[in-house]
Amino acid sequence: MKDFIFSSPTKIIFGKGTEEQVGKEVKNYSNKVLLCYGGGSIKKYGLYDKVVKALKEEGVEFVELSGVKPNPRLGLVQEGIKLVRENNINFILAVGGGSVIDTAKAIAMGVPYEGNVWDFFEGKAELKEALPVGVILTIPATGSEASDATVITNEDGWYKIGFHHELLRPKFAIMNPELTYTLPPYQTACGVADIMAHIMERYFVNEEGVELTDRLCEATLKTVINNARIVLKDPANYNARAQIMWAGTIAHNDLLNTGRGRGDWASHRIEHELSAIYDIAHGAGLAIVFPAWMKYVYKNNINRFVQFAVKVWDVDLPYENLEEIALEGIRRTEEFFKEIGLPVRLKEAGISDDRFEEMADKCTKGGTRTIGDFVKLNKEDIIKIYELAR
Amino acid sequence: MKDFIFSSPTKIIFGKGTEEQVGKEVKNYSNKVLLCYGGGSIKKYGLYDKVVKALKEEGVEFVELSGVKPNPRLGLVQEGIKLVRENNINFILAVGGGSVIDTAKAIAMGVPYEGNVWDFFEGKAELKEALPVGVILTIPATGSEASDATVITNEDGWYKIGFHHELLRPKFAIMNPELTYTLPPYQTACGVADIMAHIMERYFVNEEGVELTDRLCEATLKTVINNARIVLKDPANYNARAQIMWAGTIAHNDLLNTGRGRGDWASHRIEHELSAIYDIAHGAGLAIVFPAWMKYVYKNNINRFVQFAVKVWDVDLPYENLEEIALEGIRRTEEFFKEIGLPVRLKEAGISDDRFEEMADKCTKGGTRTIGDFVKLNKEDIIKIYELAR
Repeated sequence: MKDFIFSSPTKIIFGKGTEEQVGKEVKNYSNKVLLCYGGGSIKKYGLYDKVVKALKEEGVEFVELSGVKPNPRLGLVQEGIKLVRENNINFILAVGGGSVIDTAKAIAMGVPYEGNVWDFFEGKAELKEALPVGVILTIPATGSEASDATVITNEDGWYKIGFHHELLRPKFAIMNPELTYTLPPYQTACGVADIMAHIMERYFVNEEGVELTDRLCEATLKTVINNARIVLKDPANYNARAQIMWAGTIAHNDLLNTGRGRGDWASHRIEHELSAIYDIAHGAGLAIVFPAWMKYVYKNNINRFVQFAVKVWDVDLPYENLEEIALEGIRRTEEFFKEIGLPVRLKEAGISDDRFEEMADKCTKGGTRTIGDFVKLNKEDIIKIYELAR
Repeated sequence: MKDFIFSSPTKIIFGKGTEEQVGKEVKNYSNKVLLCYGGGSIKKYGLYDKVVKALKEEGVEFVELSGVKPNPRLGLVQEGIKLVRENNINFILAVGGGSVIDTAKAIAMGVPYEGNVWDFFEGKAELKEALPVGVILTIPATGSEASDATVITNEDGWYKIGFHHELLRPKFAIMNPELTYTLPPYQTACGVADIMAHIMERYFVNEEGVELTDRLCEATLKTVINNARIVLKDPANYNARAQIMWAGTIAHNDLLNTGRGRGDWASHRIEHELSAIYDIAHGAGLAIVFPAWMKYVYKNNINRFVQFAVKVWDVDLPYENLEEIALEGIRRTEEFFKEIGLPVRLKEAGISDDRFEEMADKCTKGGTRTIGDFVKLNKEDIIKIYELAR
């Protein structure tokens, strides 16, 4: 087991109608906020009106930044930074899913910094301060509501890069599972794949003596799998929605990798190149990439893949052939993604094979770096994984 | 699933040699601290010298309060409050196990309060502020290193009462599993029973739709059980000590009861009366009380006890007789406590049956209140549980 530092300071306010508390929570930090959101859904389903009412009741002024899209763009972040500076705002309220939260976090980083906020993503600057961010979560998926991470896409070259720092953990996250009832099945499924991927990135490590976090990962994965099946049949099942929503936070607040290092993250890197260029949903990209990655690396630590198959997927085959058990676990992972309506091959997402080299190149900074930790992958490895996903 | 609020802001600094960082961590809060500890063991094994060195290196002054005993006393808390006030101290560093941490927390509550700190425990005052507390943990057991709770015994009448408030979560907890190598087997076992009890208090609820926390509880219990067996044979097994130490924190930082309410806590209340009067180790008292409580209440929710038996203890019996499965789970719980060297009957701890009524009376404030949540227990119920533990 590795050494670690852990804290999860975000105040989670979880339950029915909790969005009505947003005014009071914001008021602890500021009287003037940037209200950051995506498109029409929060207006369509009445959440926008509730938030405005709650803010006004507490006398909190707000300036709006809307139009955040999946795979959120640097351009909108820059716009937000400008808005915040012009209006002397010192708190950012994100109402939406991971893209909205990540945009809010990037704005929070950029405001106190004199240079270009993209410097942080490129490793050219060190984060010293950030504005506080609060969240009303509407899509369980990225875990950004309590994580230290943000992922932004730079339209200039379509680079999608993640950045993490303790200063980026939101001050509070309001989580009402009822707000997720109206999520379309495909978006629900993408969220599920993202949550599972966050756990699997942490699960596939070579570190030994990590029984507790192994079991916690397996527990969370099983819960997500079971409840995904329920909500896809019964979208307004509160308890099932609640299990997924809370699992999504735990999957990414770094509890599950305590003592294991940060995790592998190769699949995320490989997927980021896909969604940066083809703008597919991150969760769908992960459903394609993760099984391919598994097929490419499982021989590196067959025991871990056997444990995954047995503990997560209840694979019950003779132990005389461990490879067969491992492969059955991978097969069930892929089958599950199919079952919940996700693509598991690039061609199913309309992605051709003509840019594998370009993506592998970006992933490895021109072939100069490796990615991943469970197995270190170079440019050629990554191309082979894209080929397995074809 | 119930609504909840959760945060776990304590900065956990976990790993080998982490105690050397204490000076730097303290320095973030103060230049003058109260150094609170128990008896000789931190001096005997060199931890005291390391702490003093680390504090001096950062120029942090300290005043000492030693002599904290198990079932920590109000008298020493009052002494600590006086010391802190006289010396203009504004941070308390606890080096030890739960008793030391709980003493530090109670001092932290008492210093800014004009009345008697015992008022908080009796529900006569509302906590508005508390000094910050930091921890170097030497005994995995109470989970106080990241919890919002403190339990103090008032010598005047031998009342042992717990109090909890978000202000009581320590700012940091330094956790080096190596520091637990020298714990005697009995103390290790008492810690294990305490950790398991913290999880079981949260596990035995009637709330439905809590699959995630059910699984997380089961995962943590299984890990503690497996690794307790390892460390009792091999006390210097780092990974096994580490699993137990980290499980002890997770067991009591309120993650495992998110969505379940606070839990039952009847067994803790029943045990507190034992350790207040007879001054036995809290973990040993729990090993006696918890199986008795289980035997008394299991029929209230047989399915939950079946799940406990199957998921935690791998009971594999025909499902035609659920009661038999439930009872086998209880039997294995008791057998495990015996296996690790704990008493499971009052007489094994030298406790006679002549004060059951008195203890049940204190527990229920003269028979006017019930305790517990899984099943509400009145004075007569509690006497019957003491009798089952005889």
